[in-house]
Amino acid sequence: MGIIVQKFGGTSVADPAKIHNVAKAVIKEKQNGNNVVVVVSAMGHTTDYLIKLAKEVTNNPDSREMDMLLSTGEQVSIALLAMAIQSQGHKAISMNGQQVGIITENIHSKARIVDIKTEKLQKYLNEGNIIVVAGFQGVTPTGEITTLGRGGSDTSAVAIAAALKADRCDIYTDVEGVYATDPRIVPNIKKTDMISYEEMLELARVGANVLHPRSVETAKQFNVPLRVRSSFNLDNLGTLIIGVDNMEIYKPVAGVAADTSQVRILISNLPDIPGTAAELFGALAKNNISVDMIIQSLAVNGKNSIAFTVNADDLDETLIILNNEVKSGEILTDKDIAKVSIVGAGMVDRPGIAADMFRSLADKNINIKMISTSEIKISCLVDKQNANDAIKALCKEFDLESKEIAAVKGDLPNL
Amino acid sequence: MGIIVQKFGGTSVADPAKIHNVAKAVIKEKQNGNNVVVVVSAMGHTTDYLIKLAKEVTNNPDSREMDMLLSTGEQVSIALLAMAIQSQGHKAISMNGQQVGIITENIHSKARIVDIKTEKLQKYLNEGNIIVVAGFQGVTPTGEITTLGRGGSDTSAVAIAAALKADRCDIYTDVEGVYATDPRIVPNIKKTDMISYEEMLELARVGANVLHPRSVETAKQFNVPLRVRSSFNLDNLGTLIIGVDNMEIYKPVAGVAADTSQVRILISNLPDIPGTAAELFGALAKNNISVDMIIQSLAVNGKNSIAFTVNADDLDETLIILNNEVKSGEILTDKDIAKVSIVGAGMVDRPGIAADMFRSLADKNINIKMISTSEIKISCLVDKQNANDAIKALCKEFDLESKEIAAVKGDLPNL
Repeated sequence: MGIIVQKFGGTSVADPAKIHNVAKAVIKEKQNGNNVVVVVSAMGHTTDYLIKLAKEVTNNPDSREMDMLLSTGEQVSIALLAMAIQSQGHKAISMNGQQVGIITENIHSKARIVDIKTEKLQKYLNEGNIIVVAGFQGVTPTGEITTLGRGGSDTSAVAIAAALKADRCDIYTDVEGVYATDPRIVPNIKKTDMISYEEMLELARVGANVLHPRSVETAKQFNVPLRVRSSFNLDNLGTLIIGVDNMEIYKPVAGVAADTSQVRILISNLPDIPGTAAELFGALAKNNISVDMIIQSLAVNGKNSIAFTVNADDLDETLIILNNEVKSGEILTDKDIAKVSIVGAGMVDRPGIAADMFRSLADKNINIKMISTSEIKISCLVDKQNANDAIKALCKEFDLESKEIAAVKGDLPNL
Repeated sequence: MGIIVQKFGGTSVADPAKIHNVAKAVIKEKQNGNNVVVVVSAMGHTTDYLIKLAKEVTNNPDSREMDMLLSTGEQVSIALLAMAIQSQGHKAISMNGQQVGIITENIHSKARIVDIKTEKLQKYLNEGNIIVVAGFQGVTPTGEITTLGRGGSDTSAVAIAAALKADRCDIYTDVEGVYATDPRIVPNIKKTDMISYEEMLELARVGANVLHPRSVETAKQFNVPLRVRSSFNLDNLGTLIIGVDNMEIYKPVAGVAADTSQVRILISNLPDIPGTAAELFGALAKNNISVDMIIQSLAVNGKNSIAFTVNADDLDETLIILNNEVKSGEILTDKDIAKVSIVGAGMVDRPGIAADMFRSLADKNINIKMISTSEIKISCLVDKQNANDAIKALCKEFDLESKEIAAVKGDLPNL
């Protein structure tokens, strides 16, 4: 008998009727012959409501007390889901983070899991229970309630799957699975049946946001097969995310994404003296500012220029630091840029991919301002206004389109 | 440095503004030079809302899952109150039942406290914290969340006070203290400055409902001085409830109350054979039906009659049992009755009190249908329509009126 861990987010348990739907999906997995542990988030807008309450009490709530407050949201969900499963005729029991023993660091609002106790989970599974676990929360070794921060419930689910050596962790969401790019940009994009942890992580880094990288990292670390699937269409198996070593066939390009959160900074007329770049980037690193793409041009007339990108949120601080560091030279910023990336584990073996990418963009008259590459990713900086056209061209180029329109609603992302 | 335990109910913490008022009351006690532990209930109608949610999921929610659900209500309150105290400049820390170690029986929805751990409480107090504890909830030795049922938060507070050997437990409520009778019936009733546990318990048994008897029983058992006081008027010290042995002066009559939840059953023409009454009341006892007042008349012509009162909720079941047991005789029921009682530890020493009560009712033409007495209580059964007049007459008779109108609002009780 296998073990499946399932995770349902807040919109899936937003009201009693939806909770009963989740109960059906859970029971279906149990009836497939599996032991089931289901991890849930707080109902709908509960967390927002609790945050609003706290803000009405004080502008600056203590993070320990915020965790005490917010952890109640998931505890409400688990009790109600356990009731719903029971009322549909199956044994169920709810457990909060403290009861399971989801042990975390002693850091509030963004604790990392350090250990998960499995004794009680195993005992309740052996007794035939479906176990409903509160996501997003844990407890320190001294009994303090903590929360896990962004992507917390997904991470809870993956970590529990790892601890139980589960066969699979299914993340139920409001999309059918992972798409090669945002279906709001390319409506006939292919759903990906299988993708590697590494590709998912690169896609997340370059702007795709189906799963929080933290949960994918944990799945990768413990080799937990992950499935992203729709809570509205239980017959669709969604997308399986596994280790690249376990994939027999993979496409050269698994996904295309655009990141519009970066700004480009150009420093021209820098003196061509050894150590200039090191000093500059050293100063930024010391202030925790991550630099993404970097190009240093060849020196002309003893003068040099350096271009790089940083996150838009870090722009003000970056400029303050640069104005201190750059004694002579000119600093220009460009906010209207997008980093368009293709990601694929198959690139390693196929050297022509980069050239195909550049040509495809050139055919659409899209100018490439900077390029960076990693083992399974190629990124090109383009004008923001060209981002969607670039994505469309690349999806066509690398055969990521389908004959069907993806069943995803929503507005185009704001570029 | 003394320890004071305070308890605030749901209406006192119904919204952020009220929570800040509670914080002020808590801080005031801290500034008086005491260590303070404050026990709170769930905000306003939170518990009702959670029960409604559960009922929308299933008609018959599991009691373990109900406890999991309902215990979140108090956890929200403690986090918000701790934040409010902190924002007013004092050290505070919240603790749920599990964190304190409020150990209960393994019974859901109405568990009794078996032990309270004091190590963490003492540690946090020693560090200068005001501790905010979730009322109404506990945890079994194996970590199951339980709730304490009716009067739960008051009982939590008293039990914590007992465990910490606190100097006093203050129960904050929406009235100014304990009144000798319901101020809605006698608007100029005296507030009682001091009353014994025993009198409070008798008053609760005969219809007064300021404090749940359970918390008074616990206070009596561990000799914890209790104070019932107003959360809206911190200058009023309310009513002190202590052991009768500690009271130097007490009035013959401490309170007057009416219980309208009983019905009278009259069985006439019973054969005057030994054992008839024993059989009848034995059958009722076997079915867990409590009989309150009993009168057996003298036999006339070999026939007997018995009158007794039971709770109105038990009437149907009582009649079914009686119809089985009473082979010959006539069964009559009277629902329009009220049991009017006077309670006072001073009665023991003053034999004339009962006669004063009967005469006082007779003067108002109020007919007494049955009488029962205990060491500190005399009860008379009267017609329901006479209950309020009886209370007024008795308050005047035993000097329980004041020159001031009690500051309590609300409608007259429905008789």
